[in-house]
Amino acid sequence: MKKPKRGIALWNTAKKVIPGGGQLLSKRSEMFLPEQWPAYFKKAKGVEVWDLDGNKFIDMTIMGVGSCILGYADDDVNKAVKKVIDEGSMNTLNSPEEVELAELLIKLHPWAGMARFARTGGESMAVAVRIARAHSGRDRVAFCGYHGWQDWYLSSNLSSDKNLDGHLLPGLEPKGVPRGLKGSAVPFNYNRIDELEEIVKKHRDIGVIVVEPLRHQEPKNDFLKKVKKIAEKIGAVLIFDEITIAWRLNPGGSHLFYGVHPDIAVFAKAMSNGYPMAAIIGRKKVMQSAQDTFISSTFWTERVGPAAALATIKKLQAKNVPLHIKKIGKMIGDGWSLLAQKHGLNISVVGPEALITFSFNYSKDNQALRTLFTQEMLKRGFLATPSVYVSYAHKEAHIKVYLKAVGEVFEIIKEALNNNQIHKLLEGPVAHSDFKRLT
Amino acid sequence: MKKPKRGIALWNTAKKVIPGGGQLLSKRSEMFLPEQWPAYFKKAKGVEVWDLDGNKFIDMTIMGVGSCILGYADDDVNKAVKKVIDEGSMNTLNSPEEVELAELLIKLHPWAGMARFARTGGESMAVAVRIARAHSGRDRVAFCGYHGWQDWYLSSNLSSDKNLDGHLLPGLEPKGVPRGLKGSAVPFNYNRIDELEEIVKKHRDIGVIVVEPLRHQEPKNDFLKKVKKIAEKIGAVLIFDEITIAWRLNPGGSHLFYGVHPDIAVFAKAMSNGYPMAAIIGRKKVMQSAQDTFISSTFWTERVGPAAALATIKKLQAKNVPLHIKKIGKMIGDGWSLLAQKHGLNISVVGPEALITFSFNYSKDNQALRTLFTQEMLKRGFLATPSVYVSYAHKEAHIKVYLKAVGEVFEIIKEALNNNQIHKLLEGPVAHSDFKRLT
Repeated sequence: MKKPKRGIALWNTAKKVIPGGGQLLSKRSEMFLPEQWPAYFKKAKGVEVWDLDGNKFIDMTIMGVGSCILGYADDDVNKAVKKVIDEGSMNTLNSPEEVELAELLIKLHPWAGMARFARTGGESMAVAVRIARAHSGRDRVAFCGYHGWQDWYLSSNLSSDKNLDGHLLPGLEPKGVPRGLKGSAVPFNYNRIDELEEIVKKHRDIGVIVVEPLRHQEPKNDFLKKVKKIAEKIGAVLIFDEITIAWRLNPGGSHLFYGVHPDIAVFAKAMSNGYPMAAIIGRKKVMQSAQDTFISSTFWTERVGPAAALATIKKLQAKNVPLHIKKIGKMIGDGWSLLAQKHGLNISVVGPEALITFSFNYSKDNQALRTLFTQEMLKRGFLATPSVYVSYAHKEAHIKVYLKAVGEVFEIIKEALNNNQIHKLLEGPVAHSDFKRLT
Repeated sequence: MKKPKRGIALWNTAKKVIPGGGQLLSKRSEMFLPEQWPAYFKKAKGVEVWDLDGNKFIDMTIMGVGSCILGYADDDVNKAVKKVIDEGSMNTLNSPEEVELAELLIKLHPWAGMARFARTGGESMAVAVRIARAHSGRDRVAFCGYHGWQDWYLSSNLSSDKNLDGHLLPGLEPKGVPRGLKGSAVPFNYNRIDELEEIVKKHRDIGVIVVEPLRHQEPKNDFLKKVKKIAEKIGAVLIFDEITIAWRLNPGGSHLFYGVHPDIAVFAKAMSNGYPMAAIIGRKKVMQSAQDTFISSTFWTERVGPAAALATIKKLQAKNVPLHIKKIGKMIGDGWSLLAQKHGLNISVVGPEALITFSFNYSKDNQALRTLFTQEMLKRGFLATPSVYVSYAHKEAHIKVYLKAVGEVFEIIKEALNNNQIHKLLEGPVAHSDFKRLT
């Protein structure tokens, strides 16, 4: 691999003209490998990525932040997208594809009766919360998990700037969120039904409960069922944010897997294999409350999003992609465990297989170890962090060469640990682990 | 023209599975021609649109709600889009095109130093308001014009449900908008600098002023300059919402035309010829406040949006599209005036040419007359309302055949007026003119 000079230089230029350098915290070079990360891609196909300097990598990390579940530039999805591009992707009239997509989503989730669409995850959650508040007539939200950048969610940190720290991203700043929203969103922790019980006891006006049904923890002691029971009891609208997890375990929301049906479920990311698309589905009676308020946007009516989603979902079903993902994810997780054992490294592997992840268990140096892993894997031709969004394009052959490289890198890390040389081996700063100002 | 049976049937199906039938108020059949509108398109190219029943129409109305400024399925934009689709439209790494686009927007607007991107107009205005509030440290917004569906804007109707009535869409319901936002957005009318002066006298904590610099009224008595002066005096961040008007008068924001530079300008719609894209540009110091808060979304990082925007803006410049639009818009407006005179119809024509619009001046029947116009034009092969978003694909030949049809329809309308037969001639209900629940 050549040093990705062009990518590094463009990232430095970008930070001068784009606050933060880009549009997403999780794509900042500083989150992977500060001052060394290739930052930009020229071309991508399957799991292969070419950077601006002509290096070719295999993506063994976030695969488009979880959006490219079939792999990059999937032929079938692209064919469907190009068809609607040739035939006009936008019009004064509506796209028939959105009705077909609404019907398909309802068929996959028989508890739901209606659907609305948006184009990004953050705004689709804001749509869901608006509909839920309109329906229950009560503004206060109890939530757990990560749900994006919008006011309704970030307002939680107006009461305490640590409120969101347990929910994926610590350190989120609520500056610019109107102070009138203080107290309007109350956090509880996943699998802590006692916390939610406390909240509904203290706040008699909870109108909405928002949960990520699954990320790295499985629901314990019927957590999801109990959440639903509480929502029913207090007459709150229950929203499952399926943006990260859906389509990976089964063709649809993860809640189908657990047999717990919310009032509203929200999809984005993987549903359209990288084309902007989001869906809000729900029970008919709840969704009709969208008609009592105003939720309307020009670009929600374009045709690429629904065409990409239809093609992605149909391929997911036809190829049983969730099964493939489970198998490959297991192969990766088992590989990590074996190699760690072999080299005497102390790591923990957590699932689900679709989001397979390991962490180093060395109290103070974990973030440096993680950075060293990324640095050494990059030299070997892999975009890699201890977290993989497995895709359909990851085949066994990729995992074999990947695990070979992981073995080499684990050996380097173990030696560095033994000789106390982690920081000496790092050729740049340690990666950020949370929200930080870039200057 | 055949009766658009399939389109009408699909619209009725859609209303059962999508609240409101679609994603945008202005695309509802009920806003054009209830029970008669073709509703869906199969194919579109230039200004031609084919519906599901095989009818071909010329679009003489909103051209994708103003987004398709070059015409439908523009070859140059589509070529650029297909290139990034073939090479992967989404990745773990960033798209270099977004840096190029940031630099182009800054070059076109030298007062600006940085850019952020989103994918829809509504969310981009929420981003702008978040940055502005974070920068000024004050939550209260004074605004005029239409700015979408999000909480910050709709909250204005929590104080009085008529607050937004003067701003494009009357009747917007703020249900589901948290009551803690009451009073956080205060409306004033365009060209009424005295109203803004009153607001800043009454509320010492206005931190943000949001204005559509132009829609159907030109600024009078240095309105925009005076707004800017007030913003400077009170230390508020001035946002120009250019979503509807930009790129039509000149290659960039309409504010360049008036020589008044805001702190932040927001673009969407026409900037990418129908592909989801939005930009928030601003002074460096103001935009850096995005770094003190959390604004981040996965789909803001995909590649189709910036590629489409770059191709659209470059073509706009190369072909001097604004000049073409002005010429065609004038031809349409002059044509309406002459034909109305010829047939003795009382109409008013308002500009700018890019959004050329007429209204009937018959106090009680105007909405019925407008509906009859749409109905009779549809029979003649035109998607038509009294409002046209002129595009580069509208050529003189189209306007000639269009004005011939308008002449025929004006004659029908005049006769109907004379014989008091407007409602008798209507083959369906009168079109809606504002927000209404569809059941």
